[in-house]
Amino acid sequence: MHHTLPTIAFTLGDVNGIGPEIFLKAYPSICQHCQPIVIGDRAALEFYAARLNLPMVTCSIIEPSSPVTPQPGTLCAQAGKASAEFVITAIEQAMAHTIDAIVTLPLNKEALHLGGYHYAGHTEMLGEYTGSPTQSMMLVGGDVRVVLATTHIALADVAAAITPTTVERALVNAYAGMAEIGIRNPRIAVCALNPHGSDGGIFGNEEQHIIAPTVLAFDAAHGTNTIGPLPADSLFAHLAAEKCYDAVVCMYHDQGLIPVKMAAFGMGVNITLGLPIIRTSVDHGTAYPIAGKGIARYESLLQATEYAIRIIRYRRSVYVR
Amino acid sequence: MHHTLPTIAFTLGDVNGIGPEIFLKAYPSICQHCQPIVIGDRAALEFYAARLNLPMVTCSIIEPSSPVTPQPGTLCAQAGKASAEFVITAIEQAMAHTIDAIVTLPLNKEALHLGGYHYAGHTEMLGEYTGSPTQSMMLVGGDVRVVLATTHIALADVAAAITPTTVERALVNAYAGMAEIGIRNPRIAVCALNPHGSDGGIFGNEEQHIIAPTVLAFDAAHGTNTIGPLPADSLFAHLAAEKCYDAVVCMYHDQGLIPVKMAAFGMGVNITLGLPIIRTSVDHGTAYPIAGKGIARYESLLQATEYAIRIIRYRRSVYVR
Repeated sequence: MHHTLPTIAFTLGDVNGIGPEIFLKAYPSICQHCQPIVIGDRAALEFYAARLNLPMVTCSIIEPSSPVTPQPGTLCAQAGKASAEFVITAIEQAMAHTIDAIVTLPLNKEALHLGGYHYAGHTEMLGEYTGSPTQSMMLVGGDVRVVLATTHIALADVAAAITPTTVERALVNAYAGMAEIGIRNPRIAVCALNPHGSDGGIFGNEEQHIIAPTVLAFDAAHGTNTIGPLPADSLFAHLAAEKCYDAVVCMYHDQGLIPVKMAAFGMGVNITLGLPIIRTSVDHGTAYPIAGKGIARYESLLQATEYAIRIIRYRRSVYVR
Repeated sequence: MHHTLPTIAFTLGDVNGIGPEIFLKAYPSICQHCQPIVIGDRAALEFYAARLNLPMVTCSIIEPSSPVTPQPGTLCAQAGKASAEFVITAIEQAMAHTIDAIVTLPLNKEALHLGGYHYAGHTEMLGEYTGSPTQSMMLVGGDVRVVLATTHIALADVAAAITPTTVERALVNAYAGMAEIGIRNPRIAVCALNPHGSDGGIFGNEEQHIIAPTVLAFDAAHGTNTIGPLPADSLFAHLAAEKCYDAVVCMYHDQGLIPVKMAAFGMGVNITLGLPIIRTSVDHGTAYPIAGKGIARYESLLQATEYAIRIIRYRRSVYVR
């Protein structure tokens, strides 16, 4: 088994978004690097293949839901419900080791809620269905890799959510994540929360009271040599110019997502760290306004697949299966 | 007078930082585009010229302070006090119209405080000494230009500081600033405060309650067509890929400074908008660790000078002098 192509399940996401289209486009390339399985809706793939004159896929398709008639660009409860069922089935398969990894295509959060699944998104579903409350979101764009200490919360709530626990969790997951994607002896930097890192406590003091002590304690416990906290603006300027850090732990969503998306140019990848299973994702949404038009780009999906394979290789090298 | 070279005062900043060195290096180029005046310390310039084997400047030097013996890289109250006096003298000259603009070299905030001047930095001194409480900070890095609604405050205080007043001030200054640097019919976008622009109010609601209504009211009052609020991460991703906005109004420091500094690669410029006088600046600090070593880069100073000249030209074209 160790030298066969890995088996990766692709969840089709919301069938009214660009997920099916980009999977059809990427399929020939995907097949060169793994054994794909679709967890989704055969009729939806056939619909987009016919509409966009793309070859239909030839791999296995697991259909956990009743068929949904695609209506490109339309918010629809049935599509939202199906998108959740695709993910849940994929998680079950991954937990049962019948697949090696999950790559998720985009779902629509509003459709998800209409369909009766009240999650903020994939990451929260993965946490719940795998029983992993301590996952972290890693985003990769080119050479910029960020791990978030907090994710989808209001900016007003960020400062209170920066605690030794949330910062340490991001550090643990960042180091584990670097190992999993094959980066040895990683150079990991940590962002300050406040502008200029609070300029010595003039505006805010989370750097002195929370972030710096947590970094020091983490390094002492794990024998690492983490850099920071550093002011986020100059940290990312150095990173853009010199690629001096393998990963950056960010305190909040936009602090990490702005630099990643600037660096990614449509090729970003979202990796959930700290799960028992492997899950990567495109870094974009359903893009309803361009769904079904044949113009969606699929580079992010290829990158997500590549990262899934890197992590599978790492786990195969470490664990006896 | 309209066709003579403009007169620009360069404040020397902290003589223990890299300001004197980069001025000496940039001086030949600066002289091709303007009539420079130094407001600073002749002996300090001579010290660095001798030490680094650079030609001494030949322009006028106004010396408002007693001489300070340079000690490269050393925090020093006397240097901090002098750096403040350079700026105050430059503001007086600009208010009296004996110079056309000020370009500031970096001062050290801690030295400034030790020297008895309790300001957060240049911008606050400029606001007070020109009687302009409604200035905004604009940062320019390549094609990325941001105007900040809030600046040097703790992240925990940002959400409460986002009000119709602070957002509208940034919009007013952004449009005025674009005109001053010669961009007609600018496309100006506004960032959301929360991740994903709060996803319709799921985390935070400042977009719906404050930012969107303020943008709409501003557009209605001024006949503009402002874009936003938009999620900051995808906004800057589009900007990096397509240069689709001439300026971006950001809600807080790092939201604007991260993308600017990534795009600037050491060539960023800081422009104070909403002042009766013209002031631009390098976007970096005193860089004590490399002061006096001859390795400081001066591209940011050349850019700051170029932007000052663009604004001088605009004001000459608009106002009868």
